Formats: sequence, structure tokens, C-alpha cells
Amino acid sequence: MDALTKFAPRPSGVGEMFQLLRDGRPRTRADLAQVTGQARSTIAARVDLLLASGLVAPAGEASSTGGRPPATFAFAPSAKLVLAVDLGATHARLAVTDLASTVLAEHHEEISIAAGPEAVLDRAAGLGLKLVEQAGRSSKDLVSVGVGLPGPVDHDSGRPMNPPIMPGWDGADVVTHLQGRLPVPVLVDNDVNIMALGEHRSQFPDVDHLLFVKVATGIGAGVISDGEIRRGAQGAAGDLGHIAVAGGGDAPCRCGNTGCLEALASGRALADALTSHGTPARSSADVVRLVRAGDVTASHVVREAGRTIGSVLATCVSMLNPSVIVIGGNLAEAGEHLLAGIREVVYRRSLPLATQHLRIVGSRTRGRAGVLGASAMAAEHVLSPAAIEALIP
Amino acid sequence: MDALTKFAPRPSGVGEMFQLLRDGRPRTRADLAQVTGQARSTIAARVDLLLASGLVAPAGEASSTGGRPPATFAFAPSAKLVLAVDLGATHARLAVTDLASTVLAEHHEEISIAAGPEAVLDRAAGLGLKLVEQAGRSSKDLVSVGVGLPGPVDHDSGRPMNPPIMPGWDGADVVTHLQGRLPVPVLVDNDVNIMALGEHRSQFPDVDHLLFVKVATGIGAGVISDGEIRRGAQGAAGDLGHIAVAGGGDAPCRCGNTGCLEALASGRALADALTSHGTPARSSADVVRLVRAGDVTASHVVREAGRTIGSVLATCVSMLNPSVIVIGGNLAEAGEHLLAGIREVVYRRSLPLATQHLRIVGSRTRGRAGVLGASAMAAEHVLSPAAIEALIP
Repeated sequence: MDALTKFAPRPSGVGEMFQLLRDGRPRTRADLAQVTGQARSTIAARVDLLLASGLVAPAGEASSTGGRPPATFAFAPSAKLVLAVDLGATHARLAVTDLASTVLAEHHEEISIAAGPEAVLDRAAGLGLKLVEQAGRSSKDLVSVGVGLPGPVDHDSGRPMNPPIMPGWDGADVVTHLQGRLPVPVLVDNDVNIMALGEHRSQFPDVDHLLFVKVATGIGAGVISDGEIRRGAQGAAGDLGHIAVAGGGDAPCRCGNTGCLEALASGRALADALTSHGTPARSSADVVRLVRAGDVTASHVVREAGRTIGSVLATCVSMLNPSVIVIGGNLAEAGEHLLAGIREVVYRRSLPLATQHLRIVGSRTRGRAGVLGASAMAAEHVLSPAAIEALIP
Repeated sequence: MDALTKFAPRPSGVGEMFQLLRDGRPRTRADLAQVTGQARSTIAARVDLLLASGLVAPAGEASSTGGRPPATFAFAPSAKLVLAVDLGATHARLAVTDLASTVLAEHHEEISIAAGPEAVLDRAAGLGLKLVEQAGRSSKDLVSVGVGLPGPVDHDSGRPMNPPIMPGWDGADVVTHLQGRLPVPVLVDNDVNIMALGEHRSQFPDVDHLLFVKVATGIGAGVISDGEIRRGAQGAAGDLGHIAVAGGGDAPCRCGNTGCLEALASGRALADALTSHGTPARSSADVVRLVRAGDVTASHVVREAGRTIGSVLATCVSMLNPSVIVIGGNLAEAGEHLLAGIREVVYRRSLPLATQHLRIVGSRTRGRAGVLGASAMAAEHVLSPAAIEALIP
């Protein structure tokens, strides 16, 4: 007997059958029997379990060619809740959503991530329970939690790995700590990956290949390929900030190298550049404010930053051939200048086959990409076949 | 009734059960009943079907705590054959393998791809049938064909798309043409993708993230992420040859741009560079010959080409965080100079998190990467649950 045989729980088949209903379309017991090739009695027993769990609900009657029309059933995403937590260096955004990532209650506040994991996560758990109440639901309906953190995360263990801007968080056991307050599965990823997932699931669900690029104090990307986040061997995929830029010269970067993308095109770099041009700016928010106020120098440096980012993205386009690149992060709020610079270089420097159907667009989620992605990550986890088995009473 | 219900064949469950046996480990009927949660009678019937097909064979008896020891069964990859066809501009390499990509018979010859699809594919089909015979097997054992072509391919339809070096092949219906001679599923992909798959499946099966880079007359890559080839939206992923190189200057490229990777570091570019240095060379084979003969200038230009390729791969490492980069193509046969140049730049220019466990190695498949990948692509296709159903008598 091997490990698989010895330790795997004996599946009831309910989890697999539920996958057929995840698309939300109503089906009859006969439809399910035909697709699965299983006996009507088996199907009926599994449908009863799913109905009892609330994950599947009656969806009216099918049309009939005679006799009593058969009842149909469909996935009912509102049956259960997930808590989505998007943590940045200085902000927390939380949402309680249903299993289709529909936001039922949400909250935003300023925090300091440097307060450490215990304080920040206890606060998040407490706020989460309040949001559940605010949505008029019971904490028993909560089935999972998704968390985004502003640094590298080992997705399998949920632990931050040497995060540069999260003092006190290195190796913290985020999952166990949250489960002390919220005893459900907890999924953790870095903020850029969950933003990529949020943009994908909410805005481009039919696109198989998407890059999300966050341009803010730093620069990072999330890679969606064949519909899923690709994290790479150490979870470091998408780490664009320290790529050497063609013609980047000797601009010093905080990483110790020179000519890195972040040293040239991040919000921090642009604020420094504007300050040295005699227009004081301390942050990417200041840069955005100046561009919106019509400052010509600010518009110029933002467009040039777009070109620089475009020179790196041109390589990514050749390597990954995405259909959509979404530009987010607060520097993307500086209007069309950033996008125009990026488009100019990507369309000029990538092969026609890779760019003829490529769209480069600004984020459409109005700051919600993170919570929508954390919600999708948490909901998708509990809707897998094995997890459904665990949800069935 | 929806499309899925209407058109999907009624599965017998044999295909799903077979997946549990694909790892090759012997299991008893009781093991299978426990893992699947299905009735012993159902399991017994499915095992009988798989035994009759030859895809599963008796594998001895399990140990027993008393009474008659139960019989075990395992996947028998030698039951069926696939034909692997690796076509280049001037070569054809064919192999007949079993379903585990063990080569049973193979053939290599010079061809001209410009002879067009009918002549080349008819020749390949004829050679394939001869190889089946040579392996002492019947053509009835052949269950699929995998083909690699030296140009962009639409993997879903198997048709070449505007291939630059394959006159007469644009849009050719490779699948239907081959099926006229070999009436089995035919899978087609570009040569670099199948080389990546061949290296991965044969040399690095436990690695989830691998890049394969072919450095020959041109330069291209295949991306394996989470264990599978990622082709991108138009199948153009890995098209590295025309990425703009940092400091690439105005070296003209055949694509019309300047400073492309191929214009600086391909076999063609190096041969031109050596010729202009007074050492006549016409091809990457000439460059390799000169390096092996101890020509200092040739060694120097190859190492410099490695650095240039490394500058592009550093970006790919940041974006994809692979564990292994395999360098293939005939310029990789120039010994350590190419690899040394690549390593020098990648390890210097990528972040420690992405490089601390990264291996950069030469191809280990001795020219067989293409046929091994074509074989794996074809075998994996017929071992999927739906395809197994079709193979069962």
C-alpha cells in the first residue's frame, strides 16, 4: 500500500460532481447522470448532500417533452463567505465576499505593517468578523481567508520570506496565527500576485495569458499563464524591479546594483528626479498630483518612465506572449502618460505575432484588485474537489 | 440539456482510474477501491478492461498478512507505440518509442523542408511505418504521432503560421495529411517547444520550472512552468530572437529592427563576425569547429555571445524564476565558453532569491531532445482520461 492509498481520505465523489456545477448553469439529475456515467441513485444521493450544504440550490424546472418536468440545480455562490485581506505597507483593505467574489461588506484603513504580524493580523481577524456581521451573516458561513502581503511569500507555507519592508514578519506563521481566530483554510500570497488574480478573475476571465504590472513606490508583476498564477520555483516570478534596463547607465539602486528598473522608473525614482529638477516631490502620490495639476516636467518624466518600463515589458511579451497587460499601482493613476510610454516601446520592440492582438490597459478595479484577488484565491481553494468533501456535513 | 451533456461521450470511468496507475507503481484492486471510494465490482470490471487493452499488466503479488496474496497491476508503457518526428530546415529525425518515450527504433537523414509538406510528411509517414516494423511491432500498436516543425505552429490546429524558413508550409494541414497514412491522433508544435519538453521529461522530470534555450542559426526558447509548456496567446511564447539587447547598438537584424539578440549572438551573427575578423565561417557549425580547434577569436566571440544571451535571460529569470535553464542548439556544442558567458551575466544581474538554486546547464540529450519531446507530447495526449476511453476496446 503506498502513501496515496494510506492517507488519502476516502472521497465520496461529491467534490468531483460539484465541479460540473461550478459554471452556475442549472442541470437536472438526469444531466448529471449522463455526463458522469454514474447511476441515478448515486447522483441523487450526492445532489442531496450538496443541497443540504447550501452550495447547490434548486434552480427551477427544466422544460419537458411530457410528464412532470424535472427539477434543476445550480451552484449557489452566496451560500458561503470568504474574507479577503489586502495588506500594504501603510494600508489594510478588507472585504467579505461570497464564493463568486461579490463584495458584501468592506473596510479600508491606514495601518503600519511594521506593527508586526500579531497586532496586524489580530486587527484583521477582528475587522473580518465585524464585516461578516455587517453583511448580516454568521461566522459559521465563513469558509476561507485570503491574504495578500507586501513582500515575498512562500505560498505553500504562507510565510513571508525576507520581506524588505515588513520588519518583524520574516518567517511569521500567518496561517496558524489567523486560524487561532478564524478556524478555516488561510491562503497567503504576495500583493502583486493577488492583484493579478483579481484583475484576471474580475475583468478578463476569458483571457488565458495576462501580465499585471504594479508601478508604485516599487515595481513588480504577476504572471497569469494558461489561466493560473505562475509563481516560479521560489515564488519570485514577476520580480521586475531589479532587471537591468537597456541604457540604464549607473543610476544606483537600493539593491546594490545600478541601472535597475526601479532605480529609473519607480514612484520613488520619479519623485527624486522631480525634486532634483526643482519640483519637490516625496512619493508616487506627489508625482501623480503634479501630473494631474498639469506640471509639464512631471508628465514628461512619467512618460519616460513608461518607455523604460516598456523596454522591459517588450522582453516579457516575447517570452510569454500575453493577450493583456494591465498596468496598476498608484503611478498608473497619472492618466495616459504612463500607458502611452509603455505602449510606444512595447509595440515598436516586440514581434508582430505577439503584439497584433495585445492590449495594454490601465487597471479597472479602482483599488480593489487586491481584495478581489484574495477573495478569488480563497474561494477557488475551497471549491476544489477535496475541499468540497470537507465542507459537506 | 447543455452542450457538455449533449455531446460528451458517456465516460466509463476507466480513463480516470487509469490516471491512478500512470506512475507505474503496482497496486491491488483493494488499493484502487480505497483510493477511489468505488465498489470492488466496479473496480474489477475496469481493471479487466485495462488488462484486455494491454495498457495495464499484472505486476506480481502484494505481500499479505495471511491468506492468498492479492494480485497487483501496473501501467505497461510498452503496450503501445508513438511515432516522434523532429523536422528541421535540413534534417529529419524520427523515432518509434513506447509510451514512456523509450526509443525502440530511430532514423536520421538530411532533407529539405522546402520540398513542401506533402513530400516531407509522406516520407516521414513511410519511414515511421518502417521503424515500427524494425522495432518488431505492428502498426496497430501505434496510437499517436508527435511532430516538431522549425517555425511557429498553431498548436490547436497543428498548422504552421507564416513560418519564415518553411516555404510552402504556411497554413498546411499537417494533421489531416499525416492521418491519411497514419490514422491516429497527430500533435504538432514548434521545434523549440518539443525540445524543451524532451529535456524536461527525460532529464528534469521533478523540476517544475525550466527554460530551454536553443542557440543555433537563430535563437529561441521553450517555457516550462508548473510542469507544462506555456505557449502564450498566439503560440509565440519563447520567441527570444528579436528582443532588443541592452547596448545592442545598431546591428541590423533580418527582422528589420536593430540590436536584436539574433543580430548579435546567433550562429549566423557569430559566423559573420568571425569572417569580418579574417577567419572565414559560414554557419554555427563552422564556429563550433573553430572553437574546438582552439581558435582564440572564435572562443572570444562565443563567450561574448553567451554574455549577450545572459543579459536577456536575466530578465527571463526575474520574470519566471526557473530552477533550471538548459542551453541547447548546435552552438551549445562549443563547450563551456557559451555557458560561461551566460552564467557570468545571469548570476550577476538577477536577484539572489531567483538565482541561489538556479542551475544553468548544457543539453544532455545529445540531439535527441526533439524526438523525446515529440514522443512525450504524443504519449501524454493518448494517456489523458478521455483518450484512454477511446483506446479501450
